[in-house]
Amino acid sequence: MLEDSKNWVSEVYDATGSAFSLKYEKHLHHEKSEYQKIDIYATTDFGNVMLLDDCMMLSDRDNFIYHEMIVHPAMFTHPGVKDAVIIGGGDCGTLKEVLRHDTLNSVVQAELDERVTRISEQYFPDLCSSNNDPRATLFFGDGLEWVKQGEPESVDLIIIDSTDPVGAAEGLFNVPFYQDCLRLLRPGGLIVQQSESPLLHLDLMASIRSRLLEAGFRSTQAVLFPLAVYPSGWWSATMARKQADIPGFRERGALNKNFPTRYYNAEIHKSSLALPEFMISRFSD
Amino acid sequence: MLEDSKNWVSEVYDATGSAFSLKYEKHLHHEKSEYQKIDIYATTDFGNVMLLDDCMMLSDRDNFIYHEMIVHPAMFTHPGVKDAVIIGGGDCGTLKEVLRHDTLNSVVQAELDERVTRISEQYFPDLCSSNNDPRATLFFGDGLEWVKQGEPESVDLIIIDSTDPVGAAEGLFNVPFYQDCLRLLRPGGLIVQQSESPLLHLDLMASIRSRLLEAGFRSTQAVLFPLAVYPSGWWSATMARKQADIPGFRERGALNKNFPTRYYNAEIHKSSLALPEFMISRFSD
Repeated sequence: MLEDSKNWVSEVYDATGSAFSLKYEKHLHHEKSEYQKIDIYATTDFGNVMLLDDCMMLSDRDNFIYHEMIVHPAMFTHPGVKDAVIIGGGDCGTLKEVLRHDTLNSVVQAELDERVTRISEQYFPDLCSSNNDPRATLFFGDGLEWVKQGEPESVDLIIIDSTDPVGAAEGLFNVPFYQDCLRLLRPGGLIVQQSESPLLHLDLMASIRSRLLEAGFRSTQAVLFPLAVYPSGWWSATMARKQADIPGFRERGALNKNFPTRYYNAEIHKSSLALPEFMISRFSD
Repeated sequence: MLEDSKNWVSEVYDATGSAFSLKYEKHLHHEKSEYQKIDIYATTDFGNVMLLDDCMMLSDRDNFIYHEMIVHPAMFTHPGVKDAVIIGGGDCGTLKEVLRHDTLNSVVQAELDERVTRISEQYFPDLCSSNNDPRATLFFGDGLEWVKQGEPESVDLIIIDSTDPVGAAEGLFNVPFYQDCLRLLRPGGLIVQQSESPLLHLDLMASIRSRLLEAGFRSTQAVLFPLAVYPSGWWSATMARKQADIPGFRERGALNKNFPTRYYNAEIHKSSLALPEFMISRFSD
């Protein structure tokens, strides 16, 4: 199958012997930036799709789920985020969702590869529609360094919206980085990190969780959601909190939010925290 | 990509311009039964996989999610299922989960294609390990006819565990069949049907819902869960109830269940009923 492979763009997940493919009408863009290959395809049914080094990053069709779920559960868990940092997130979809919150004073997006943002401005203009918000700063450079140099206790929320934990992103999944994050956060502050597939990467999820605790975070919580263009179609974020347990969440705030969402709501927030039996048994090791 | 296509088995979802592929070590079985092509592959990472007419039906790796979620939410919603019917479900995984419930007196599996069951006995022996339970009857023939001929008000739960709504399965998604199901059910009885992907087949989900109500069911409820080998990796079942609203569910029963599960638990049950914003807005039309 897929003999007509000239019209299919695929991400092959070698480590798990699986692949996901989308039929496309046009290969809109290809370049080799300083850091990675960047490709944009116009697909038949998923709108525009971005690949970095042959890994699907987002599609027009389902990126709302990812961006809403990496942002709003954390934002409605914290009592009121004033200052946030996004590590990675160059497509600016996460930035847009953070900026929907009235409590916010400032958000810095620290993306290594400026070309990802420039290309997103061109091919995902909706995601970049808040980039000129006066509360937003687009910083292009090393997020690891940014966190290390940042003023201690100056931030309420750090969102790690990175690629898979290989290459440039690998350092974002280690204890030294988590310790830097902890220093940057105010008491009660939160970190939330994309943490791969519950079905395919459970060991990694468990390791993120134990490293966050090892680094000094008090509590962790997995957030689960579907995501068609990522391996297995099922994805996770992991939250951790400084010097406090992760409480319920501001359910009334979520119920009365003054901005539209397409996936997130208060019931979905609660439901995303429920863990299946196999995760409970793995995490209780 | 997938140039090495001899070692990849793919399901292509033409209607949505997407495809999912698994790397395999061996093509274990191929036949053309009276009704369909049946293929079994030994994959590198998902165990054995069954395809019917080139559509992936189940894998060793993730079928537990599907089978638990098409059975246990309905079983723990009904006050106590005594007599159940499965339409389709030839791999016997649904049957096995139904039989875990102590309240059950009888269950009939009405599968059109006996070869599916015989091949499942060979390649998915674990799913067939309860086939000799004295409460179980394996009937091979037309499920539509079976339901039409059945004694009125003789069944508490009908599970429609079918292939996609094309070909032989198409009649299982129509009002006349739902009316036959309604007649077969005792008051308060439930139907639960696999109802495709929330992301890709929302119109179908909405249509199943409205046809169930049109046929005379009192209330409906979508159940959502991840499923890696099905299109988009996100799947649904739709429940409907005769002469009664779908209540909460027997949460204490789910908490104290006397059998193991790998995905389902009481929290997952609740979480599977939460609808994302785009579904709420589509279903309120």
